[in-house]
Parts: sequence; structure tokens; C-alpha cells
Amino acid sequence: MSLLVTGSIGIDTVTTPFGVSEGCIGGSAVYFSMAASYFAPVRFLGVIGDDCPFDLRDAFRDKTVDLTGLETRPGSKTFRWKGSYHGDMNEANTEDVKLNVLGERPPLFPDTYRDTKYVFLANTAPSLQMELLENIDHPQFVAADTMNLWIENEREDLLELLDKIDMLILNEGEARLLTGQKNLVTAAQDILKMGPRVSIIKKGEHGSLMVDSNGDCFMLPAYPTTVVIDPTGAGDAFAGALMGYLAKIGKIDVMSIRNAMVYGTVAASFAIGDFSIHGIKAVELSRIEDRFDFLRKVTQF
Amino acid sequence: MSLLVTGSIGIDTVTTPFGVSEGCIGGSAVYFSMAASYFAPVRFLGVIGDDCPFDLRDAFRDKTVDLTGLETRPGSKTFRWKGSYHGDMNEANTEDVKLNVLGERPPLFPDTYRDTKYVFLANTAPSLQMELLENIDHPQFVAADTMNLWIENEREDLLELLDKIDMLILNEGEARLLTGQKNLVTAAQDILKMGPRVSIIKKGEHGSLMVDSNGDCFMLPAYPTTVVIDPTGAGDAFAGALMGYLAKIGKIDVMSIRNAMVYGTVAASFAIGDFSIHGIKAVELSRIEDRFDFLRKVTQF
Repeated sequence: MSLLVTGSIGIDTVTTPFGVSEGCIGGSAVYFSMAASYFAPVRFLGVIGDDCPFDLRDAFRDKTVDLTGLETRPGSKTFRWKGSYHGDMNEANTEDVKLNVLGERPPLFPDTYRDTKYVFLANTAPSLQMELLENIDHPQFVAADTMNLWIENEREDLLELLDKIDMLILNEGEARLLTGQKNLVTAAQDILKMGPRVSIIKKGEHGSLMVDSNGDCFMLPAYPTTVVIDPTGAGDAFAGALMGYLAKIGKIDVMSIRNAMVYGTVAASFAIGDFSIHGIKAVELSRIEDRFDFLRKVTQF
Repeated sequence: MSLLVTGSIGIDTVTTPFGVSEGCIGGSAVYFSMAASYFAPVRFLGVIGDDCPFDLRDAFRDKTVDLTGLETRPGSKTFRWKGSYHGDMNEANTEDVKLNVLGERPPLFPDTYRDTKYVFLANTAPSLQMELLENIDHPQFVAADTMNLWIENEREDLLELLDKIDMLILNEGEARLLTGQKNLVTAAQDILKMGPRVSIIKKGEHGSLMVDSNGDCFMLPAYPTTVVIDPTGAGDAFAGALMGYLAKIGKIDVMSIRNAMVYGTVAASFAIGDFSIHGIKAVELSRIEDRFDFLRKVTQF
């Protein structure tokens, strides 16, 4: 199935206990596409300014990522994010954000993307997520991410969006904020009442959980890696491999969603193993399969 | 195999979002024994003062718990703990502790306990844990719990204890404090270098993880319960069912430790479902088995 992602492309400056990565490639759509492309071709939709110091065509050279939807907007500046990680590295401290081109009109939508079947709307204003979704004629499975800013300030738009999507993927803090529930299983169940038929909560080093409207429930630990260099993009890599796998097999059922989450978890474990996109960019599929098997081995009883 | 637990018996006052339970039965040895007795008879070792408002013989009436080692010390006062839970209920706020009889000499050790094979040393001063252990002639498998207080203030004693035990069970904050490692897999591995051949880290609502000196690794989510009334004793119920199951099957191998952790997780899920010991006291074994099967169902892929 065809898979489209729309999200950010960023110039990131990240500080972790392992060093500083200054002005490196980042952004949700970038991490998502890197991970998803191991499973299915990706249609990329995003916008940068003419100040962007790196060439995305170069970054995606060996990947099956269609960059028709990459708009370089003259006179605009690329989105920038500066953040750091400390302690258990589960949460980023945002030190500076410059929305720049992301605060302007959305990227131009190529006609060749209109027949897309699987869609991932990475975190941005829910009104913009809806506007982007309207460009697609007959989407079959739509997933979205969101964040505290929209839950707090654009709740009505967000609820409207939730009614239009099939799956919401968000982290534990966001799930608690959205539902007012402390218990994450209850929070995930409450999200189903808001529209999506699949609700996935990411818990960083503690893994993820899923409930769906058929009553299925799935609890998955994180991959037990000891190499955590830079957590940036872990959630987007998770969503990327998850959606990439679903688009590849073309069916949404209990075991396909579970396996997709395992591939997502494995992709995240590679993403955090190095700065910027280096961790997720250069993995052989065989190593992804090895970690899939290992995660099964360390969770079965 | 015979199983002995030594730990606290407490008069607890607990406040959670669901109410207040004042002056109720608590203590690590009590929760442990309740959970362990579903699997194997328990030899109980603990001391109370003559002020204790409840009758432990009554509480354990239908349970296979040998109370020969329950000492009621005239003129002494029972241990008291007052605490509360807020927010995600993962951590207790201790409001008041009165060590009372726990600050005096250890309980009298019955001769009939000397041939015990499986031993659990619940959290107390490591020098005391060692002293208690010396009463046992030929222990086959010794597990212990500890806490921040001893890690910070009695580190040498604790390291001496770790060299004498087979398994350490502690929570994530304690594991990080003991090892100086933020990454929990690394922390669990570092604990193996300190002596134990099995290292288990409890993560509350996020489950638990285990590594052992044979290179095995096991990651287990928590049971996905939505009923969390009072988390007190969850960790002790976890350890109780875990050790009870190991004592029952009488062998320590990869699958027995994994299954033991699953039973521990299930016991904890019942313990937190009501105030004091009510949640873990009145469960039929069939309901424990049902949750064991359910946990497998929601984790397999």
C-alpha cells in the first residue's frame, strides 16, 4: 500500500551526556521516512527554507523515499530545534524552537500523492493535519501524533481530527493530559471513545501499549539496548517502522498491529544508538529482523 | 522446597485518591507471605510489640503460613508506617515512620526453621539481613530486597550481603542509586558483578526486567489492570509469588524464573486492587492462573 508522511524537517542542535550534535538533520518526517523505508516506499511531504544546510536528496539517496513533496521555499527559513537530554534520557528539554517555515502555509501537495492509502500525520497543529488529510482522495488507514501544546490550546480542533483518524500514537504524558486519566490502560481506552479505533501509548524506555476497539490489548517492553546516545526521533522512528510494516502487509488486524509495534520498537532502538539520523539510516534489514527475534526471545514465557 | 521470609509487620496508615485506610495490617513479610502461600507453605519470621491491634493468626487463618517465628515482644511497640500516593501512584510519599520494635534486636529464630532451603530477606539493614541468614544451615536460594537508605548509608554492609545472596530484587530508583547507571539494563548487569546471579528490577506500572549470570534477559510489562486502589505491598506481593513459585517447583532455570516473575506480576496486580492486604488475601488460585494466561495473551507476538 502507498504510504505518505507529512511532518517536520528540522535543523537540530542536541546535547546529550555523550556530546553535542550541532545543526544536524532532524524532524519528524525525516526520522519517520528513514524507518518506514525499510518496509515500504514513502511519499514525503514537508517544507524547508532556502537556508537549509543539508541536502535531503542526499540523505535519502539509497532509500525508497519519494521527495516530490519536498518543497524548498525561497525567502523562508527552515524549522530549528535545540534541546538536551539528562538523567534517564526519557524526556527532552527544549531550549529553543524556531518554527520559521512551519509557521507559514503548509507544503504544496503533489497531485501524484492524492491516491495514497496509508497516511501518517506527524505532530503539528491539528487544523493543519486535517487540511493536509483533505488532499487525499480515499485514505484507508490514517494515523496521527500530537503533543501537549495542541491538547492544551487547540483541543476542539484535535477532537475533530481524532474523529477522522484510525490510530493515534502519543506518549504517556500526552495521553494523560488528553484524557485526564493517570492509569495508562484507562487513558488508552478513553482515546478510543474520541474516534480512533487503535490507540498506542509510547513510554520511552518502558515500551509501549496498545488497545483497539475490538477489545485487543498489547503490552510491549522497549528493546533492552544499553546504547542510548541520542533519543531524538525515537518516537518518529517507532511510528515510521510501524506504519511502514502495516503499509507493506496491507492489512490491519491483531497480529499485524502487534508485529508493527515490535518493528517500531526495534527501529527506535537503532535511532537512539547514535546522534541525528545516523542510528536509523544505516541499518541492514537483517539486523532489524535479528532484534525483532531477540525481543520475542526476551519477552516470551 | 521450604521457604522462609523475614521482614516487617506494620501498622499502616495509607492515603490514596480512593480514600484513607487507617491503622491497617501491612509490612513486607505480611504481603510477601500472603502472595507466596498460594504456591508454597511459608515460614514467617517477624516481630511485633504488645500494642498490635490485629491478630496475624487470624489474618493468616486459611493460609499455609507457619507463624512459629512470629514474636510478640512485651513492652515493645509495633512498627508503624504512614504514607500517601498521588498522581500516577508509582511512588509512595512516606509521611511518618516509627521503627519501634524493628529498631531493637531481631526476632527470635525458631530451630524448626534452620533447615530452610529458599529464603527471602525483605528490606531491612543489610547487617541484620546477614545475621538472620546465618541462622540457616544450608540455604539453597537466597533472595533479598533493599532500599535507598541502606544503599546510601550502609553500602559496605550491603556489598557484603550481595556477595552472599543469589538474587536481588529492587526498584528502578534503587537500582540506579546502587550502580550509578541510568540505563536499567546496564544497572541490572552491573548488579550481577556485585554477587547475585539473578538481578530483578521492578518498575511499578511499567513492569519488571531480569538479567542473570547465564546471559538471559527477560522483560515483562505490568498486568494491564485499571483498578489501582492502594499500591502498598505491590513489590512484596511480587517477591512473594515469585519466591513461592520457585520454592514450589524447586528449580532455578530460565523458564522457571520467567514464570515466577509473571506470577509475581499477577500477585502485585491483585495486591493493588484494594487497601491493605484485602486485595491479595482473598484471591482464588484460578483467578491467578487466569491473569497469568491473560498476561501471556497480551504480550505475545
